[in-house]
Amino acid sequence: MPQRRVYFFGGGHADGRGGMKNLLGGKGANLAEMTHLGIPVPAGFTISTEVCAHYYTNDSSYPEGLEDEVAKAIGRVEEAMGGGFGDPDDPLLFSVRSGARVSMPGMMDTVLNIGLSDDTVAGLIKKTGNDRFVYDSYRRLIQMYADVVMGLESEEFHRLLDARKKEKDVFHDMDLSAEDLKYLAGQFKAKVKELSGKDFPDDPREQLWGAISAVFRSWNIQRAISYRRLNDIPDDWGTAVNVQAMVFGNMGEGSATGVAFTRDPATGERTFYGEYLPNAQGEDVVAGVRTPHPINLSQKKEGDGESLEEMMPEIYASLDAIREKLEKHYTDTQDLEFTIQRGKLWMLQTRTGKRTAEAAVRIAVEMESEGLIDRKTAVMRVDPDQVEQLLHERIDPKTEYTALTRGLPASPGAAVGRIVFTAEDSVAWAEDADEDKHRTILVREETSPEDIDGMNASQGFLTARGGMTSHAAVVARGMGKCCVAGAGDLQIDYRAKTCTVNGTTLKEGDWLTLNGSTGDVIAGKVPTEQPELSGAFATLMEWADEFRQLGVRTNADTPEDAKTARKFGAGGIGLCRTEHMFFGEERLQYIRAMIMANDETERREALDHLLPFQRDDFEGILEAMAGLTVTIRLLDPPLHEFIPGTEAEIRELARDLGKDPDSMVERAAALHESNPMLGHRGCRLGVTYPEVYEMQARAIIEAACALVKRGIDARPDIMIPLVGEPRELSLLRELVERVVKETMRKKGVEVNYHIGTMIEIPRACVVADEVAEHADFFSFGTNDLTQMTYGYSRDDAGSFIKDYLKLGILRKDPFQSIDKRGVGALVKMAVEKGRGVNDELKVGICGEHGGDPESINFCHHAGLDYVSCSPYRVPVARLAAAHAVLRAKMKGML
Amino acid sequence: MPQRRVYFFGGGHADGRGGMKNLLGGKGANLAEMTHLGIPVPAGFTISTEVCAHYYTNDSSYPEGLEDEVAKAIGRVEEAMGGGFGDPDDPLLFSVRSGARVSMPGMMDTVLNIGLSDDTVAGLIKKTGNDRFVYDSYRRLIQMYADVVMGLESEEFHRLLDARKKEKDVFHDMDLSAEDLKYLAGQFKAKVKELSGKDFPDDPREQLWGAISAVFRSWNIQRAISYRRLNDIPDDWGTAVNVQAMVFGNMGEGSATGVAFTRDPATGERTFYGEYLPNAQGEDVVAGVRTPHPINLSQKKEGDGESLEEMMPEIYASLDAIREKLEKHYTDTQDLEFTIQRGKLWMLQTRTGKRTAEAAVRIAVEMESEGLIDRKTAVMRVDPDQVEQLLHERIDPKTEYTALTRGLPASPGAAVGRIVFTAEDSVAWAEDADEDKHRTILVREETSPEDIDGMNASQGFLTARGGMTSHAAVVARGMGKCCVAGAGDLQIDYRAKTCTVNGTTLKEGDWLTLNGSTGDVIAGKVPTEQPELSGAFATLMEWADEFRQLGVRTNADTPEDAKTARKFGAGGIGLCRTEHMFFGEERLQYIRAMIMANDETERREALDHLLPFQRDDFEGILEAMAGLTVTIRLLDPPLHEFIPGTEAEIRELARDLGKDPDSMVERAAALHESNPMLGHRGCRLGVTYPEVYEMQARAIIEAACALVKRGIDARPDIMIPLVGEPRELSLLRELVERVVKETMRKKGVEVNYHIGTMIEIPRACVVADEVAEHADFFSFGTNDLTQMTYGYSRDDAGSFIKDYLKLGILRKDPFQSIDKRGVGALVKMAVEKGRGVNDELKVGICGEHGGDPESINFCHHAGLDYVSCSPYRVPVARLAAAHAVLRAKMKGML
Repeated sequence: MPQRRVYFFGGGHADGRGGMKNLLGGKGANLAEMTHLGIPVPAGFTISTEVCAHYYTNDSSYPEGLEDEVAKAIGRVEEAMGGGFGDPDDPLLFSVRSGARVSMPGMMDTVLNIGLSDDTVAGLIKKTGNDRFVYDSYRRLIQMYADVVMGLESEEFHRLLDARKKEKDVFHDMDLSAEDLKYLAGQFKAKVKELSGKDFPDDPREQLWGAISAVFRSWNIQRAISYRRLNDIPDDWGTAVNVQAMVFGNMGEGSATGVAFTRDPATGERTFYGEYLPNAQGEDVVAGVRTPHPINLSQKKEGDGESLEEMMPEIYASLDAIREKLEKHYTDTQDLEFTIQRGKLWMLQTRTGKRTAEAAVRIAVEMESEGLIDRKTAVMRVDPDQVEQLLHERIDPKTEYTALTRGLPASPGAAVGRIVFTAEDSVAWAEDADEDKHRTILVREETSPEDIDGMNASQGFLTARGGMTSHAAVVARGMGKCCVAGAGDLQIDYRAKTCTVNGTTLKEGDWLTLNGSTGDVIAGKVPTEQPELSGAFATLMEWADEFRQLGVRTNADTPEDAKTARKFGAGGIGLCRTEHMFFGEERLQYIRAMIMANDETERREALDHLLPFQRDDFEGILEAMAGLTVTIRLLDPPLHEFIPGTEAEIRELARDLGKDPDSMVERAAALHESNPMLGHRGCRLGVTYPEVYEMQARAIIEAACALVKRGIDARPDIMIPLVGEPRELSLLRELVERVVKETMRKKGVEVNYHIGTMIEIPRACVVADEVAEHADFFSFGTNDLTQMTYGYSRDDAGSFIKDYLKLGILRKDPFQSIDKRGVGALVKMAVEKGRGVNDELKVGICGEHGGDPESINFCHHAGLDYVSCSPYRVPVARLAAAHAVLRAKMKGML
Repeated sequence: MPQRRVYFFGGGHADGRGGMKNLLGGKGANLAEMTHLGIPVPAGFTISTEVCAHYYTNDSSYPEGLEDEVAKAIGRVEEAMGGGFGDPDDPLLFSVRSGARVSMPGMMDTVLNIGLSDDTVAGLIKKTGNDRFVYDSYRRLIQMYADVVMGLESEEFHRLLDARKKEKDVFHDMDLSAEDLKYLAGQFKAKVKELSGKDFPDDPREQLWGAISAVFRSWNIQRAISYRRLNDIPDDWGTAVNVQAMVFGNMGEGSATGVAFTRDPATGERTFYGEYLPNAQGEDVVAGVRTPHPINLSQKKEGDGESLEEMMPEIYASLDAIREKLEKHYTDTQDLEFTIQRGKLWMLQTRTGKRTAEAAVRIAVEMESEGLIDRKTAVMRVDPDQVEQLLHERIDPKTEYTALTRGLPASPGAAVGRIVFTAEDSVAWAEDADEDKHRTILVREETSPEDIDGMNASQGFLTARGGMTSHAAVVARGMGKCCVAGAGDLQIDYRAKTCTVNGTTLKEGDWLTLNGSTGDVIAGKVPTEQPELSGAFATLMEWADEFRQLGVRTNADTPEDAKTARKFGAGGIGLCRTEHMFFGEERLQYIRAMIMANDETERREALDHLLPFQRDDFEGILEAMAGLTVTIRLLDPPLHEFIPGTEAEIRELARDLGKDPDSMVERAAALHESNPMLGHRGCRLGVTYPEVYEMQARAIIEAACALVKRGIDARPDIMIPLVGEPRELSLLRELVERVVKETMRKKGVEVNYHIGTMIEIPRACVVADEVAEHADFFSFGTNDLTQMTYGYSRDDAGSFIKDYLKLGILRKDPFQSIDKRGVGALVKMAVEKGRGVNDELKVGICGEHGGDPESINFCHHAGLDYVSCSPYRVPVARLAAAHAVLRAKMKGML
């Protein structure tokens, strides 16, 4: 028997199963699964993802025999639902929808009402007695088909619709009569002919195959590709196609359509949560054109429409029972779509519900205590990248502000940014050289899937229309961004690039603050603050700590950062950069004097002035991290970074330092470098100006000694940057060790210290065995290591990396997620070589990759001891480190 | 029995052997060997290099029992030579000399006449009857000892000597009487006391041990370290110390001293060649203070002093017989030192004779035909680095010039440079930012070992005094540089930085030409030319080709370079850079128009103009290399390299191109890069501006098609630079291949072509298996690979690499000789990975390392197919490639 390619479901029987997501896509598998569970699902069939692969590798053609299989499946649907596809007397209509392994909401195409034609329209009118509904469905089919299948300009059809509304002097589509819609259907068909030279197909089978092909094609439209790139979905997964009998929520009285979540997707509260629209089709809810009603009384607020619980109590009760059944079955929050056709409830879809970080954490922890899932599962349920938002910007509760208006609190948190009115502007502003323009708030009537790139570039979204399940709201929660939706007072003038709210006019570039937790919209910048790590979140983090093997440290240069990170669970400092400490006005003067010194004596004199500053810095940081390791990197950047850029400034500096301006200009010119990234920096400075590293080592140990004398457990580790040749490290280790011992002797105090190196030069990885002979620890500086391994200057590579991502030459920006094949291979090599000669070697990472979950997973498998990341990424890293362990265990179980 | 540390030789018996160079040093081993051969060698003993190692690792102390061993050896010397060390009646004197494994002429210290004291002076006078000689020897001992052993300022002693000469109104030291010298000895001893607070040691044993320690110490004085660095001599070899009975060439009548070569060290001619001075000590010959006499009649020219052959025919005959014996024994040209003491000939030293490249080649080839050595040995006898000089600058024989004067043709070839008068200036000029100052001629009265760095920085040397074996001459031949020595007409005023020759005054910075083959000194620049590869040299190269396994290609961007390289034996072009082709005035205009284009259409328009230029370039080069592979690298440098640097120039360019100046300035600013080395260049340009690579591919194939139509075998290989990610190559290979096939189809011609890549990004080495799937060949661009593997920008690293070499952090500049441990390991990894997936993969190197013998040896062992180097390095590479094979064979035989 040949491989099955078409999977029927309906009438209590399904060929597929919920576990077959790779083959049937998430939607198809869930439809099959729901059917098995005895849930009322309109019958239909799923064409598998293998057909999609075949379609793309065989020049857009289908495998032999597929047509027969589809025809047979249509027969089974007719049997289950009654009526006949193309039957003029009792026509059965189909929807054709995409469905990939993971949900890509709104990214691919859909065609509804397949099967309507001049022939079947009459039959359907007879059957439903509702000619307005039928002609509306028909004109929608033509409009959708022209756009999605035939690729015609949809604007042309909108124009005809608008013209008719104007003629009839009505505002809403709903106010058009059956006659108008019939007229429009005719106009639309003529327009199809005019634009394409072809007739709109009257044959239902031709319509069906056109729609199937369009859905397969839509896997590779730009917005779908963008979405996949943003969400790490492989291009070769492909989509399945779901062909399902249409049921109608817009068949007048007793009909409705809605979406619901088994728990509140914003807060995670265990309450049935949803919206519906009476007498409407599904896309009316999602598109946010009409403001939906709440699903039940518990949600209902003043001014809301009648709830489903009130309007159809029995149906609501069935729906609630289905909700219970599905959540228990899937042991996770579900996102449901339903339609009520003339008093009969149909479930159209169930899938794992997207949720905010806050909701994700609460749901995971509560489901564990409800006994639905175990601790491991609870930990795995929360996406590490998502939890960062729990630690970011929230309107400072002590701040009083006057809101311009209040919309729906569609995605919590706070966003502060400058107003832009189009997705394109949002992208352009984010890429502007002026950093002050990078934070934007996207303000729209409503958003649509085309806006995805722009939404990604913005801090948050404000929409004038749409509900909690509108596009903007769903995307915001998925991205962990703040969103205020359906702010009805907002009037936007796209051409003028202004918006008006209750008499206040704001223009592009004005600052705006959104409070996504309350729905408040505030002009200007409102102070924000960081929340505590407490409640369910704290519990989840504790669980993560039980599982993880990697240590998590932080990158911090100040006592404040160190304290924040410690609060978030950092187990030490993995990278404390010392150069930022030189930029205070007085300090800068001495470092400049040091650089401009004529000889070692003058240099030492300047350094003597710097020593007390450095000692104070280190004392503060070591104290904040008492009992934990503080890894301090000695001076790293090239000296010219401390020198003013223009000749006039240098001359002024010369006057300040009492030096000859000409020779100063000359000295500054001598410091100039063609490629500073590869220049005289890092330990190369330590070698040529040993007195600088001596001063720093002395300052560190003096600080530690002072703390130890006060009974504080100071644990400095001294890190020598940019080592490429083992002899650099042996020489500088000797120098630092001499100063350390001398200082400890002088102070009469023993300090717990280590000396190690950054591994950030490719050569250091290759000769890591020799380097490890002189190192107590390695810390991978994967930012620089990536720059040199790829030969990409981070400052310059933006110009081509974007093209590389677009062309698929790079799958990911290697500065965001570690390049496992190249940079990662060097890291592994270094770990193996280093540990090979030095059992005691501690190995960590302190590049920005230390806060990236995928990179943390790599670090776990490469056998690192710890990762170090920015304070706000510490919980992300703790969770990601736990995921790395659990994911490996799960794979081991398979 | 404990390990022997002191090796006696003399009276026909020696403890050591010629093969024991590691232990006894070259000089010690040869003294032992000569003794075994029955050659008259003054008795003495050698303290081994192991003692040197002990001395350095044990805080300048000696092993237990060494003193006894030395005392016993002194006894044996006394027995062999007669007299007693410290015996007031019949004193025996010693010389104490260094002797490392390989000769380091003049680099370390020597003390002569050890054993003279107020007590022994009288006995020696009685024994020799020559009080002048004895007091001269005594004051020399004090002077040398004070300088070398006690570290006192030698200038102070010179001053006393000069004062005495002035008092006595004499010009030469020789004109001072015994009385004067006795007086000076007294003055010298008083000066020693005054400067050091200590008495000059009167105890001969104290003198001896002081001298021995001084020689061991001198292993680590700066000039010795510099010499080792220049000559790749490991620091841990150490030196032996040779203590040998003094014999005197300055004992009046019947005494003489000299040096000789068994063949002419300048031309290689098989003739006994040497110089001597009657009544003189050895250093008088070497220091060039007196102009020596020729050793025999065949050498004697008008104005020369009496030859040894005339003055002492019997002694000359013995010397000639010893010469024959030694050359047969060592099967190589020897450099001999001899002294005649009152009619008795003593051989003081034999060692392998330094020679010019010309001589090295001739001697090797002639010795092979004489049956002294085999072909392999002949090939191994010539240092690859040396042969380059055979191909460089020689005065164009068609040029007539008027010489200012003629000196001795001390080292052949030609040198054209600017006059400098001190070694320090020579170094400073070579490092000047102004390249025009880099070529210098060092003009000195005479040179000394302290000048070694400056000599290395100069093109050639001109000295006013000294003979063919003077310091300048010996060093010049060793370095393969041109030298004219002993130009007596030359008068130098160091203070004024001028020199006068026969009435013409030249100043610092003036151009000067030296003809080292004739001794001519010419004011200004004289045209030079390149010699042919013919005669013995051609023979040797053919032999090298028989042995070598590596192919040798050249880096050439023009048909002229290609022709030169082919003449020198290049087997193809390994790197033809295309960017230099854009710098012609008209071309530059189009490339700038291309860069400044607003869109692809404008870009293509500009490229259309460039195509015919490129096609012509390629046609010329492919024709010059007909039948051989020409590897053409597509555009590599960042585009800003083609854009003028200042805003004013850009505005002018805008006017020329008819563009808006403001937007042009903006575009130029956008092209600016912080680290151009790691920026938008190489294949990254090919990806973002595919039309550029398309144009180049088309130009290459159109050129090849035109040649093939003319019956010429054009073989272009297209090389894509800077690949770091396999997908870059697969994408660009596809693009290039499409153009290639299209062009061949259009022209109706099949071209033999390949497509490959430079491997110059560390990541490319790590993922070389994946890269190799899309490559017909790999060519290692080790310049860039070294920059990125080390993180060194070549433009900037000068500032610290010098310090790194000084501190021994780097053994060699990794841009000169490949870093085997780091960069080399990546190269090996890439070769293994690449070949692992692609059997057919051709692998070569086209960085500058391709012309460096040590790197070539590495390439051989890494399994590369070929090296590519500049045209003048092609013979060097051919020879080095043969050496790599033969050296490996020799090691295999051990």
